[in-house]
Parts: sequence; C-alpha cells; structure tokens
Amino acid sequence: MMGSRGMTLTGILKDGVHRLDIRVYYEDTDHSGRVYHANYLKFCERGRSETLKCAGIFHTDLAAQDLFFVVRHMDCNFLGAATIDDVVSVETRLHQQGPAKFVLDQRVLRGEEVLFAARVTLAMVNAQGRPQRIPAGLLQKISES
Amino acid sequence: MMGSRGMTLTGILKDGVHRLDIRVYYEDTDHSGRVYHANYLKFCERGRSETLKCAGIFHTDLAAQDLFFVVRHMDCNFLGAATIDDVVSVETRLHQQGPAKFVLDQRVLRGEEVLFAARVTLAMVNAQGRPQRIPAGLLQKISES
Amino acid sequence: MMGSRGMTLTGILKDGVHRLDIRVYYEDTDHSGRVYHANYLKFCERGRSETLKCAGIFHTDLAAQDLFFVVRHMDCNFLGAATIDDVVSVETRLHQQGPAKFVLDQRVLRGEEVLFAARVTLAMVNAQGRPQRIPAGLLQKISES
Amino acid sequence: MMGSRGMTLTGILKDGVHRLDIRVYYEDTDHSGRVYHANYLKFCERGRSETLKCAGIFHTDLAAQDLFFVVRHMDCNFLGAATIDDVVSVETRLHQQGPAKFVLDQRVLRGEEVLFAARVTLAMVNAQGRPQRIPAGLLQKISES
Repeated sequence: MMGSRGMTLTGILKDGVHRLDIRVYYEDTDHSGRVYHANYLKFCERGRSETLKCAGIFHTDLAAQDLFFVVRHMDCNFLGAATIDDVVSVETRLHQQGPAKFVLDQRVLRGEEVLFAARVTLAMVNAQGRPQRIPAGLLQKISES
Repeated sequence: MMGSRGMTLTGILKDGVHRLDIRVYYEDTDHSGRVYHANYLKFCERGRSETLKCAGIFHTDLAAQDLFFVVRHMDCNFLGAATIDDVVSVETRLHQQGPAKFVLDQRVLRGEEVLFAARVTLAMVNAQGRPQRIPAGLLQKISES
Repeated sequence: MMGSRGMTLTGILKDGVHRLDIRVYYEDTDHSGRVYHANYLKFCERGRSETLKCAGIFHTDLAAQDLFFVVRHMDCNFLGAATIDDVVSVETRLHQQGPAKFVLDQRVLRGEEVLFAARVTLAMVNAQGRPQRIPAGLLQKISES
Repeated sequence: MMGSRGMTLTGILKDGVHRLDIRVYYEDTDHSGRVYHANYLKFCERGRSETLKCAGIFHTDLAAQDLFFVVRHMDCNFLGAATIDDVVSVETRLHQQGPAKFVLDQRVLRGEEVLFAARVTLAMVNAQGRPQRIPAGLLQKISES
C-alpha cells in the first residue's frame, strides 16, 4: 500500500517507529481556529491502528476472538496547535511490553514541530470489559515488526 | 427527571412533539466559528433517543434483542448556524409509521429561529445489518406516547 | 503527493471524478458495530476538501479572505454499512455550478458496493454567515480541474 | 436554569465541586460497545464550560476579547466504561490557580463508580495561540463562585 513519494493509509514502520500522515479537516477544528484538543487522541488511535496493521494485526480478527484494546492511562502534553489544511504526522513507538499491557510513546508533529506528545498504556479486555491476557502470537508479531 | 423551570436530560414530550435542549460546546464548533454541519445530525439523534426514552424504549433493551435503529434516509436543510454557548432545541415529531420503518420530522431551533430541518426515515436491523420488523410492543408504546 | 501504488492524502482526480480512500477507525464506529451515520457526512467533507486541493484551493486561503464553504442542503441515502478496518472510497463529482452555489454528487463505496450516496448543495459565506459570491478565480480553477 | 428534581444544562456548583449530568448516546460509543476513550475528554470539557458559566464566564465574551482557554496537560486515567443510555456525572473542582493557568481535577462517574479521572492544566491564549494573562476579573469570578 506504499507509494513512491509519500505515505499511504497504512503509514511507514521503520527502525521501530511508525509514522502516519493525517490531514486536518473542518471536523477536527473548533471555534478557536485550531484542532480541538481531544482530537489529538483520535489521531494517536489512528496511528496505533495502522501500527498494528503493519504487524499484521486487525481489530476485526481481535473482535472475532472477543478481544478489544483499551486505553488505561494517557499522559497528554498539548505543545502546539494544528490548523485546517495542515498535514501532521503521528509517530508511534513501543516503550514497554508486558503479558497484559503495552506502553507506547506517541507524538503528533507538523514538520519538525512537536504539537502533541503522550505516553499511552494499553490493555486488552473482552466485550464485558474484563481484562484479558494478550495472545502470545500477537506479542510475537509486534516484537518482530 | 423533569425540573420545574426547564428541561432535563430526557426532554419534554407534549402534543406529539418532543423537545430537547442542547448546549453548544467547543467540540461542536469548527474553524468557521459555527457548529460543524454533521453535528446537527448528532443533535437530532440525541433528540430521537430521548423521544424513545419518553416512550419507555431503551437502546440497551433493543440491543439485548439484537435490534438496532438505523437511519435509511435523511433530507437535511441547513438554514442557520449555532455558535458556542448557544442553547438549541431539538424538536422531534412522528410523520409516518409502518411495520418496518418510521418517518420523523426534526428541527433544531435557537429560540424561534429554525437552524436545521430534516425528514428522517428509520428502519430496524440486527447486528448483521439485516432488516427486522419493528416489534409490535414498541410500535404500541410509541403510538400511545 | 501521489504514490505509485495507491492514493495518498490528496486522492485522485480523473475524468471529473475525485476519489479519496479513507480507513475506518474506532472513532468512526458506534455500539452497533458499524460506522455512525453522521460520520459519512464527515467522510464526504474530507472528499470535498481534497477535491478543492486538487484544484489548488485551500481553506486557509479562503479563510484569509473571510470566505467559508457551508453546506446548505444534503440529501443522504444510507445504503450499507462500513465496519472497523474497512477502507472506503469517497467519490465526488460536480453536478451543477452557479454564481453562488455548487451542487455535488458524492458516494462512499467499499469496493463496488455503494454504502452512502448524497447530493450536496454548497454555498459561500463570510464569518458572520452572510452569503458571498464565489470568487471568479475559484470557479475557473474548479471548472478547469 | 435549575429544576427541582435534577440538574439542567448548567449543572450544579456546590461546596467547590461542579456536577454536570450527561447522557451517553450512539455518537459517544464505539464498536466495542463502550464509550470511545477520547470522548471522556469531551465530557470533561462540557463540565468545564458549565463550571465557567456558573461563575458568569462565557466563551463568547472571552472570544470577543481574543481569549481562548487551551488544555496544556491532561493526565488521564480510564478506570471503567460507560455504555449507551447511561447517565454519567462530570465532577470538576479547582486544584490550583495561578496568573496564567488553572489546574483542575475532573472525574466522570456512573453513580458511585469512577469511570475516568484526570488532572487538567489550562492556560489562556489569543487567536494566534500566544499565551495571555488570565484577566483579573475572571480569576475573581472563579474564586468567588
């Protein structure tokens, strides 16, 4: 899915850092003229979803096994502000991995400027919200990617 | 849930018209300084949900029977624009009802000014998206409310 | 911005039809397991924004002239349902153009299956919401693209 | 705007804690059947907006002075999960206040169960995003409320 001159939907995973380009649209902005703060969390979730896809992991397969990723903790630093028409990049890198959780570092950048930085702790639950062990095959796919 | 001097979460159903008050927040606006167009559809969906609750119908009960309401058609007229801090009212009235669909007329007003008007056709599906007959008890609850 | 094997952020404009690929993420779905109905309008707005960019028109430039596009009317047909991980395509084509409005036909497809189809009437306003003539240069850029 | 038996749009400010009731709608949920994580930040922003209104402060007045609140930091703990039809309460209390920032503690509860807890640092900027001192009158209004 990768083009010669840019990133496509799936983004690029290189040297342990995944990078996804995202355009800022009307829907992302608010009346201050900038991106609404909670939407940086949406951008990060898109980055995580594409990182998983690069490792061959799909939400549809997980849901079929009654498994869902949930965010347990997110420490969010709002450092700058994107505006409409901007193209921002979401960077995702694995910080730490355990039997029941992942810790990721994520940043949203416009060029070299860091607009948003967060450390995110993810866990796995079933449809009733009960914690589940992360399947061994999934951990292996991620560590190999 | 109804207060003496205003509407609460559930809104008011009177003479066949349901009315729900909604505040406009940062999240609802876009960089033009007004409410983002697609958010009027969200406001209408909130109005429909509270109309159903006034008739004793809850999405949780429907989901437990593998039933979900879906919008099939919506003719949307964007006539004005709400801005931040505004309180708007969503009006919902039944236009037509059949064994497998409802047609509603909905409006979003600020005071007397109509900002948005739509005719909405709703149907019922299961989790696989297949059309389902609307349960007789549900039709009765709505026609009696 | 176009890659060799796929569409990038800007999409592709060919034979008068613009096509933009969009991934369905967690944020787009609702508890029914499908894309929330109002989000098809967001997808269409992204398609319109990228269509304008292909014609060399940017919201930032318009905003600097106190010009904003607004949706006046949208006739929405919800024909199918996308689910998480899906890649859908937004097609945008010009139906009609006047001194103060555009009418577009837009569709959201998954492969060959049409999930959503709408006719959209757009007008131009200033920050106070007053109707504005569409600049002649803008009309020319669009008709030439 | 306060009713006799429940909270209305503005919520209740008592003993330094503001409380706002919010209904969970289709738009708030995702395909896991629960509220999408970023939407707790929207709920908190609604709580902050109504807290300000209780102190006589309106975003429209601030915007007229070219002043906007922005979130600088938010430490988010996702502890539980709301589902459709739930009524949740957003609690907002002032933790600390300085010449250029506020620190708030916010929680989202369903009954006694804490679903989300965050410490939020807010600052003030102008439309260009430059930091601004918080007007003295505004600080006074908040400390007196």
